[in-house]
Amino acid sequence: MNYIRSMERENTYRHILKWGDKREEEVDSHMITLLKEKFGLTDEDLKKKHLPGREEVRLEKPSLLKPSHLDFLGSLCGSDNVLADDLSRARWSCGKFYGELLDLRLGQVPDPPDAVVAPRSHDEVVKIVEYCSDEKIAVIPAGGQSSVTGALRAPQGGIALDLTKHLNRIIEINSVNKTVRVEAGIMGPAFEEELNRHGYSCGHFPQSFEYSTVGGWISARGAGQASTGYGKIEDMVVALKAVTPAGVIETKDFPRMAQGWDIHRLFAGAEGTLGVITEATLHIFNHAPENTASAGFIFRSFEQAVEAMRTVMQSEYGKPHLFRISDPGETDIAFRTSGFDGTTADRLLKGLGFMTGSRCLMFVTVEGEKSYARFVMKKIRRTVRRGKGMFIGSGPVRKWLAQRYSSAYMRDPLMDLGIMTDTLETAVTWDKLLKVWSAAHEYVNRRPGAFMMIHISHVYENGANLYFTFLSPMERGNERQDFALFHRGLVDTIIGNGGSISHHHGVGRVLAPWMEGHLGKSSMALMTAVKKHLDPDNIMNPGGMLGL
Amino acid sequence: MNYIRSMERENTYRHILKWGDKREEEVDSHMITLLKEKFGLTDEDLKKKHLPGREEVRLEKPSLLKPSHLDFLGSLCGSDNVLADDLSRARWSCGKFYGELLDLRLGQVPDPPDAVVAPRSHDEVVKIVEYCSDEKIAVIPAGGQSSVTGALRAPQGGIALDLTKHLNRIIEINSVNKTVRVEAGIMGPAFEEELNRHGYSCGHFPQSFEYSTVGGWISARGAGQASTGYGKIEDMVVALKAVTPAGVIETKDFPRMAQGWDIHRLFAGAEGTLGVITEATLHIFNHAPENTASAGFIFRSFEQAVEAMRTVMQSEYGKPHLFRISDPGETDIAFRTSGFDGTTADRLLKGLGFMTGSRCLMFVTVEGEKSYARFVMKKIRRTVRRGKGMFIGSGPVRKWLAQRYSSAYMRDPLMDLGIMTDTLETAVTWDKLLKVWSAAHEYVNRRPGAFMMIHISHVYENGANLYFTFLSPMERGNERQDFALFHRGLVDTIIGNGGSISHHHGVGRVLAPWMEGHLGKSSMALMTAVKKHLDPDNIMNPGGMLGL
Repeated sequence: MNYIRSMERENTYRHILKWGDKREEEVDSHMITLLKEKFGLTDEDLKKKHLPGREEVRLEKPSLLKPSHLDFLGSLCGSDNVLADDLSRARWSCGKFYGELLDLRLGQVPDPPDAVVAPRSHDEVVKIVEYCSDEKIAVIPAGGQSSVTGALRAPQGGIALDLTKHLNRIIEINSVNKTVRVEAGIMGPAFEEELNRHGYSCGHFPQSFEYSTVGGWISARGAGQASTGYGKIEDMVVALKAVTPAGVIETKDFPRMAQGWDIHRLFAGAEGTLGVITEATLHIFNHAPENTASAGFIFRSFEQAVEAMRTVMQSEYGKPHLFRISDPGETDIAFRTSGFDGTTADRLLKGLGFMTGSRCLMFVTVEGEKSYARFVMKKIRRTVRRGKGMFIGSGPVRKWLAQRYSSAYMRDPLMDLGIMTDTLETAVTWDKLLKVWSAAHEYVNRRPGAFMMIHISHVYENGANLYFTFLSPMERGNERQDFALFHRGLVDTIIGNGGSISHHHGVGRVLAPWMEGHLGKSSMALMTAVKKHLDPDNIMNPGGMLGL
Repeated sequence: MNYIRSMERENTYRHILKWGDKREEEVDSHMITLLKEKFGLTDEDLKKKHLPGREEVRLEKPSLLKPSHLDFLGSLCGSDNVLADDLSRARWSCGKFYGELLDLRLGQVPDPPDAVVAPRSHDEVVKIVEYCSDEKIAVIPAGGQSSVTGALRAPQGGIALDLTKHLNRIIEINSVNKTVRVEAGIMGPAFEEELNRHGYSCGHFPQSFEYSTVGGWISARGAGQASTGYGKIEDMVVALKAVTPAGVIETKDFPRMAQGWDIHRLFAGAEGTLGVITEATLHIFNHAPENTASAGFIFRSFEQAVEAMRTVMQSEYGKPHLFRISDPGETDIAFRTSGFDGTTADRLLKGLGFMTGSRCLMFVTVEGEKSYARFVMKKIRRTVRRGKGMFIGSGPVRKWLAQRYSSAYMRDPLMDLGIMTDTLETAVTWDKLLKVWSAAHEYVNRRPGAFMMIHISHVYENGANLYFTFLSPMERGNERQDFALFHRGLVDTIIGNGGSISHHHGVGRVLAPWMEGHLGKSSMALMTAVKKHLDPDNIMNPGGMLGL
């Protein structure tokens, strides 16, 4: 991706909505060819920007906090750490959900907080939560604002709690226990760099890594791209400290126990509705990237690739860390945008029966100790060979790794071109995976001009996730409703065929309407009871979160 | 162990208290020599049995259920499945906690249920729980009755729910997802045999395996002897179905998700206080015992053995399945009771510096795919060698495996000899493990005539469990209070030095008094809120469980 170095003014909606590097980027030539073909765009179309959001931010809703509230917060946290101007409130009013980006492009900020407060310590968080409980002010804990589920909106106003400004320190790296104790607001890169300096890695690399925090990872139950080997974030959390209206919950860092349940697990997936996570103790891993064994494979069909993946996961010879399959739709796009399509190598593949429209890429890394990584990779290569996959070297994996965070930046230029694009994801057992996969494709294919890419990227003994990326021209003038209807139908299709509401994005406000039907009344009532106990006045991220 | 084939009459306290084979066993000659030396027992002493409990069972407390209650239960479940006689009530009044065994030997049954009911289906459990909620009758879910925490007592009477009689079927083995759906009351051996027939194993082999159920494993958060590789039971549970007074909770078998928290995890460790688990879906493993690589090692000190164990767990080259260290006290007993002490091999070991009183045994298996097991074992052997441990072949591991369930049968003949013996266990991080270990030894050593053996048997990246077995002459005539005081001091010592209340036995009524101090008021209040929501009338295993 090439950047045009024209820094956007910082007071525009566009500055808020842009993901990744705030500079403007150019779409490369392979992508342009593809967009022209898929959506019939002309050179003229490519020069225009649809709903660019270049207006200056102005909020309609005034801050409803009283001067006395702001005085209290300012005297507690320092006045530099309490912001109530329009731009700050708008910036902290949302995450990066497609619907939120559309709102910003339309110059709208429907659910701004009344103020943004950046506490400087756990104790300040305790006092803020106490004060807000007494005053019935909503509190929305916020980290890197990469939520794609509407989890950061403030429909009841209140304060957005910026944990990134001060609560971002590593407290202790314990090399005897191989754990780290860290404040919740630390961002991925700072966390990983500090661990690397001590010879460790956090093992958690979601696509949002550059703009997400430890607290956010836990709250949304995130998964890193190498989660098949390292586990999801809830597998890495050993203990945590959380401030709730009912008091501070601090759990101990035992390796395992049998004294009731692991209370820290209630905060993984609570998405800020129970309290504010201020600290966590996590497992860490040896930082030895030179040990990583990588391999790319190609299969003649998605079904064959999935079957080989399942065999790997159930063979009990160790597991990969990164483990992905791109379905034919995504493989096709990868081949076209990388310029591979039409090369001699491509013709060779086709000659071997790896045809466009059915062939699938599989990417694997095995990490950890060097000989272990080699051993497991050897086993995987044998399984893949038996499963009719073909080894294509490690180059494609390295290329993918190099752009694994920045590929998400593409959403903004696509939206500039009037293209609707969003991602959904689900967890599903092996016996239902192909059904969900094909039903989702059928659903999207029914929309003229729409297409979908699906990949598997987090894999378990008993199933995997499916990750859906769809693209379609926007219905201009009716962008929001059109999207909402299309999105709803896709979620219904995924869940109706046996997928979960979410595997690692969380639920937020966007997917909340599906919760009760999916979990059942008894389970929802139980979650509600926990919420009521910890947050009796419903000040913690209130307003439709998780269906509570 | 040699059995004397004089079957005990079935209506005595002794028949209830005996663990394992109900026949009388003889203590072998090595053990007799040891007992004579450790406790100054004479040949005369060895012939007598202290508090043998041979009296016929008679309860002081009459059943408080009304005829109408028994009629309802009989018409619902069939009259064969409702028992209210003294013997049945006594049998289902307790588990196998030392204090309970003492009570039985003293001819006392302090907390019998009013009846024992064996439901024939999930739906019958639903109706029983509904009825008992309406009638305020306590319900104590029971499986194999191997609890060592007083979890099965009925201080408020009510009904013991025998899940083993009918709810003991495998519902489905799903070989695509590599999971099994099973009723909660199935016993370990029946479960494993059926899985073996399909090429699978449950991977969960607690010492109580022969007399414990899937539902009990989950309720108490048990750990099998190969848990280092296969995980604790809570790691194996994918989904479950539980009947609570607030309705049936049924969770889905997604591999992972991010839609709130894993509600099934609340029932792991709830010990029957939230509801009755009737079904569970669990991960299963390939049954290939021929692939297992085994190795025994010996170290010159406990500290060196622990350091090597920690290195293995943190090296990221795969993990052992069974992984144990016997501390010098336990190693000494093992060498003496196996007849190894004083042999040429023993003298050779001593010549190499592996001295009685400091040397430690380590046992390892690696299971799974054959070449994987060999690969990981090779890595472990290298780590152990560098850590100054010495390979001693796989014979000792095989011997240990052969008696791994029956060694617990020894408690009864020891109690016959007036010897108090009990086990405790804890989870602790590596940085506190040696402190807990030495403090526990110091505590026991302060009691004249007492000694303790400790082992590590469940190991994690960040720590391990410690398992304590102590022996001491009983204070005759004051057996109960003497034990209670001694036990309390040991628990205080373990927790005070950084151990958890329990790693895999659970809390029950015995350890409940430590819960609030250990977990903190906020966490206990949260657990209580969950209990109140699911069981508002407190009918589920009431009376001091878990400190609720």
